[in-house]
Amino acid sequence: MTRSGAVIGLDLGGTKISAGLVGPGATGIVRHAATVPTPAAAGAEAILTAMIDLVRPLAARAEADGTPAVGLGVGAAGVIDPATGAVTAATDHLRGWAGTPVAERLATATGLPVRVVNDVHAHALGEAHHGAGAGRSSVLLVAAGTGLGGALVLEGRVVTGAHGVAGHLGHVPSPEAAGLPCSCGRTGHLEAVASGTGLLERYRDGDTGHGPAEAASGADVARLAATGDRWAAACLDRSAVALGGAIGGWINTLDPDVVIVTGGLSEAGARWWERLRGAAAAETLPAATGCPILPAALGASAALVGAASLLSTRTVD
Amino acid sequence: MTRSGAVIGLDLGGTKISAGLVGPGATGIVRHAATVPTPAAAGAEAILTAMIDLVRPLAARAEADGTPAVGLGVGAAGVIDPATGAVTAATDHLRGWAGTPVAERLATATGLPVRVVNDVHAHALGEAHHGAGAGRSSVLLVAAGTGLGGALVLEGRVVTGAHGVAGHLGHVPSPEAAGLPCSCGRTGHLEAVASGTGLLERYRDGDTGHGPAEAASGADVARLAATGDRWAAACLDRSAVALGGAIGGWINTLDPDVVIVTGGLSEAGARWWERLRGAAAAETLPAATGCPILPAALGASAALVGAASLLSTRTVD
Repeated sequence: MTRSGAVIGLDLGGTKISAGLVGPGATGIVRHAATVPTPAAAGAEAILTAMIDLVRPLAARAEADGTPAVGLGVGAAGVIDPATGAVTAATDHLRGWAGTPVAERLATATGLPVRVVNDVHAHALGEAHHGAGAGRSSVLLVAAGTGLGGALVLEGRVVTGAHGVAGHLGHVPSPEAAGLPCSCGRTGHLEAVASGTGLLERYRDGDTGHGPAEAASGADVARLAATGDRWAAACLDRSAVALGGAIGGWINTLDPDVVIVTGGLSEAGARWWERLRGAAAAETLPAATGCPILPAALGASAALVGAASLLSTRTVD
Repeated sequence: MTRSGAVIGLDLGGTKISAGLVGPGATGIVRHAATVPTPAAAGAEAILTAMIDLVRPLAARAEADGTPAVGLGVGAAGVIDPATGAVTAATDHLRGWAGTPVAERLATATGLPVRVVNDVHAHALGEAHHGAGAGRSSVLLVAAGTGLGGALVLEGRVVTGAHGVAGHLGHVPSPEAAGLPCSCGRTGHLEAVASGTGLLERYRDGDTGHGPAEAASGADVARLAATGDRWAAACLDRSAVALGGAIGGWINTLDPDVVIVTGGLSEAGARWWERLRGAAAAETLPAATGCPILPAALGASAALVGAASLLSTRTVD
């Protein structure tokens, strides 16, 4: 569907909800952005209310600006059925979130057409349309944050999959993760070594004497690596090599125009990027070499912008 | 593009060239099929001549049947640029094949509109449209033969990738292949353990006393496994577990409606399928469980039928 007018983009994450006005027209610029904490423990009704309370003033603002909102695009945590905009599955972090008919509830409350996809899928749409993937036909986004996810965008549309599950890039067998427990309950998955959480856990495996105060996240491990902690550096290298090797495999299997890497670990520094790119190059077939592996460009607004694009172009597979 | 009339489908493989008439209309039925050996060592001109010599009588036959051929669809060995129908890269097995402008040469010789894709991509199109994937929106084909390849078909169109490389499923890191040399020159790739060639090489690694006469292919190893050779059975299991684990990862990352497994190893018997499905299930996220993993349905005509579909529907990404 193609519409003129502004679109309200909303990004529902585990810790905060952000919303803003995008457009009229295809653009990555966000106006009147606002953010509130996610009432994660308060349950689905509280989360929906917080979302609606962000959307209503934006709709009024768009009206006042003379570009009334023509729709609401949402990127939401959880596995989302893109056809219905309902939550198929979610972790317990957002209490009662699984099963919530997000699109239906928001449409009733706002009177706007509503489209909902997973927040990482929305993030990929934002980067593909207006970020590091702008002008590219196929984009693989890799999000290495607390977890490890991503999405494939082909000709501007995100591949959501048969169950909205597509893009769980962290849940593939990885030689570097052999035998390690994964957050999903399986073993040996890439996420167990190449996500921020995985990096932290591997660091703690080493019984380094660093307590939680010194290393409470993957970013902390990266910082310790930069200040001369050799075990931290070894763990960081292993994480980057595992992810880079997987990226090489994805280049061979999906042959995207560009791979974009985002998430907290993408700020781990030059050493991490160097190891990651080297490992990817070592896997890549000659006919696919040259696929650029780039940092994301849009920052925190990517998912919001991508969610808005759901209403301005046909972007869901 | 959509046309009425018959379409000539042609499948150029390393050992034989097959062609036949498909349609009018979307169908998986092949009429007047003919096959000749591929003059692989004689060079690109000889291969083109053999292709043209197959196509011309089919065009005459279609004319005589009152359903003149409206186009020629080709699935060809090598990396193919789907936009130009030229060969970007190929192994030395087809001498001088890299660089051949297949679509241009065949169009000039036959006067027909010509579309060319890689033969595995064509195979996937055939199964997706008229085989085990008929009626499904997204299909991942896994071809476990001499090598290990495949293709993703989304909404009836094959994902060929930025360089025509997409679908090189054998060239991803596999925990079961750690340290093993791959045909592509890298190490640790899935193909080194889960293809027919990989299975044979792993069997031979074991110094079993079986000479080439007893085990000259992956199929031979599968047969030895069935007759009580415990080392053959162990190698077969490892191959199935490696491929099944990778399939589980692809289900998590691509979330297709169905995975179709074809190629010589798909005929390795119940033991191989059981291990493969078990390993896939052990990797799959709960939200994506239930994705069927099925044997292919079209047999040897799949690539020919898929190639013909290039001219009857819009099937290339």
